[in-house]
Amino acid sequence: MFGALGVGAAGVGVGVASGYAVGQSDDDGSVGAGSGAEQYDFYGQHQAGITTPAQDRMHFAAFDVTTSDRDALIELLQEWTQAAAAMTAGESVGGPLPYEAPPADTGEAIGLPASGLTLTFGFGPSLFVDESGEDRFGLAERQPAVLNRLPHFPADALQENRSDGDLCIQACADDPQVAVHAIRNLSRIAFGRASLRWSQLGFGRTSSTSTAQSTPRNLFGFKDGTANIKSEETDVVKESVWVAAGDDPDAEWMVDGSYLVARRISMSIETWDRTSLAEQELITGRDRQEGAPLSGGTEFTEPDFAAKGGDGEFLMATNSHVRLAHPSQNDGVQMLRRGYNFTDGSNELGRLDAGLFFLAFVRDPDVQYIPMQTRMSAQDGLMEYLQHTGSALFAVPPGAAQDEWVGQGLFA
Amino acid sequence: MFGALGVGAAGVGVGVASGYAVGQSDDDGSVGAGSGAEQYDFYGQHQAGITTPAQDRMHFAAFDVTTSDRDALIELLQEWTQAAAAMTAGESVGGPLPYEAPPADTGEAIGLPASGLTLTFGFGPSLFVDESGEDRFGLAERQPAVLNRLPHFPADALQENRSDGDLCIQACADDPQVAVHAIRNLSRIAFGRASLRWSQLGFGRTSSTSTAQSTPRNLFGFKDGTANIKSEETDVVKESVWVAAGDDPDAEWMVDGSYLVARRISMSIETWDRTSLAEQELITGRDRQEGAPLSGGTEFTEPDFAAKGGDGEFLMATNSHVRLAHPSQNDGVQMLRRGYNFTDGSNELGRLDAGLFFLAFVRDPDVQYIPMQTRMSAQDGLMEYLQHTGSALFAVPPGAAQDEWVGQGLFA
Repeated sequence: MFGALGVGAAGVGVGVASGYAVGQSDDDGSVGAGSGAEQYDFYGQHQAGITTPAQDRMHFAAFDVTTSDRDALIELLQEWTQAAAAMTAGESVGGPLPYEAPPADTGEAIGLPASGLTLTFGFGPSLFVDESGEDRFGLAERQPAVLNRLPHFPADALQENRSDGDLCIQACADDPQVAVHAIRNLSRIAFGRASLRWSQLGFGRTSSTSTAQSTPRNLFGFKDGTANIKSEETDVVKESVWVAAGDDPDAEWMVDGSYLVARRISMSIETWDRTSLAEQELITGRDRQEGAPLSGGTEFTEPDFAAKGGDGEFLMATNSHVRLAHPSQNDGVQMLRRGYNFTDGSNELGRLDAGLFFLAFVRDPDVQYIPMQTRMSAQDGLMEYLQHTGSALFAVPPGAAQDEWVGQGLFA
Repeated sequence: MFGALGVGAAGVGVGVASGYAVGQSDDDGSVGAGSGAEQYDFYGQHQAGITTPAQDRMHFAAFDVTTSDRDALIELLQEWTQAAAAMTAGESVGGPLPYEAPPADTGEAIGLPASGLTLTFGFGPSLFVDESGEDRFGLAERQPAVLNRLPHFPADALQENRSDGDLCIQACADDPQVAVHAIRNLSRIAFGRASLRWSQLGFGRTSSTSTAQSTPRNLFGFKDGTANIKSEETDVVKESVWVAAGDDPDAEWMVDGSYLVARRISMSIETWDRTSLAEQELITGRDRQEGAPLSGGTEFTEPDFAAKGGDGEFLMATNSHVRLAHPSQNDGVQMLRRGYNFTDGSNELGRLDAGLFFLAFVRDPDVQYIPMQTRMSAQDGLMEYLQHTGSALFAVPPGAAQDEWVGQGLFA
């Protein structure tokens, strides 16, 4: 499942934006929306950064826990919660600066507004049980049944140093300096308890998570996220994103949380660029300029998978990305995507090391992600131009209340 | 010379913005400034992207010329000029799309405004004479006397695949997708004639080049660019940035051009973050919160290098960055900096691979850059936290007139 080219109809929601994650402009009057004044509460029923309107930039980090002390892990989560609440409110970490001590805050975001910063925390399967089967922190009994290392899909070319991790933080903001600053401060707080395993900077969102947002383009030049789940579709969000009571009796602490699939997808940009527009559109299943399905209409028209051309071939090719990713071909499942374009310079062959950092939030990865990705890895025509180089799955606990810390329910 | 912490007084200019590179908002009324509507002419006396108010994002690329045919090189520059003029005007490259051919434009910026895009082209010393001393394109006689591979400075840890190059393009824009798109299209146009050697993405500017801009912070948390040359200081720009007639009789084609120094400076962020604020400020020579020199005053107060504290020590330490970089300690020389923060994920030790991509435009690198960097590499207290991992020098020819192509004077 790559990009957001074809998942279901984007029923334009008529409800209010879901949950607490509603943008608030500073009301001092001097700073308007779009100038970095957007601010989202860290505390709430759900973590922010999921149904929050997708910000423009992202810094994602995965960590290895280096302590074996359960109390130290809990302290880390408590300190992360405090720091996250401060930074998402546009404040520095810690109090007044002690002049003879290292500053509590690394400082590069002083003077910058909150810029819509959200910080979303998750737990990887290896936090519960390590490779040797050891219950590291007495959490094994509470490991969700669906929280397992993602399988090796056909054509995966995974790099260990871009995959997995005990903990993750997704930082999204409209200013990359704010997102980088947040990850850096949180990495620093983790010192002695967790260390950075890998990180990824995303420079442009490839998904819309609100009907108020226009559809962005991925690095293949096609609109992406046309039909993503939008936060305004409250019924779909409830059905497809949030874990509900009874989903997993051993992991009731996950209620109101979600599961985060992260995949680093490298794109063979130079090869794609030498492909004809006709071929590009055939593989995708949409036209490039407008993003309309090849069966006709405009961007938001539902594809007609039965329609055939004069040559007797399906207008939406059987190996087209949109067809394979469509809910009607996947038992009706949907996912909420928040992917980002990335470029990490150029590789040793002088090719752009660029692609899409795929992020999706689902209520059940076993149902909503793994079957689809298994089929798409084998059949999707786009796969000729893609290589999955990183992979991870995390359990994203519910939001913390004002007097709680993130993930507290797991340790209760 | 790192960052922009202390070069001269920022005399607040009273003139108009210099040259032609003045931002123009679309005047359809629907799109205001700050929304990506800024647009800069590609054609003009000087190339854009030098005195242009520093945009928020950057993608920089260096190329190896792979053809030995002078005419093919000229054609490449002609095609680059056409494409650059189109993209900086917010248009796609090439005309209507041929359906059975690869699209002329890679497409990921369709629908995005110009976003203040500037494209600045340069020639490396290796374009003139290669390592074996061969005059590759009959240009050797016209190689500027000051265009040589930068020397190996003390403490340099240069990586070959991040250094040098025959050609360079600096793409700056307020939207990273627009900058990445431009480099990608230009790389693609180069196919068969030049190939990407290295590239660097910058996520936040570390310099101001206009008095209208506020001073940004580098990843050490300090304000950077307080005292950079500003485009409004027309006399200083003329004296320090643009090559003048008579500067180099063998390279008159460089008149109205400039020399571009590029240095990838990795920062030991984790080590810096464990240093006391007192030590950080001592090494820098400014306070962190306001950016004022330690000799007193506010951000734009001139440092007093003679002032001593109660302990008899200089308030501006002799190894402080601001002191060593100040024009009064460097025979009065100044440079125009346009650096960017970068982070390229994390390295094998789990540390952020982050730092500052230093870019400076000077009239004469032998006078304005090399002596200062030689001293700073040896004496600057900041060097303990820095590693120069990439290095390049390019001759940036003057701007092209409407009916010319960039660099035409070199081949005339």
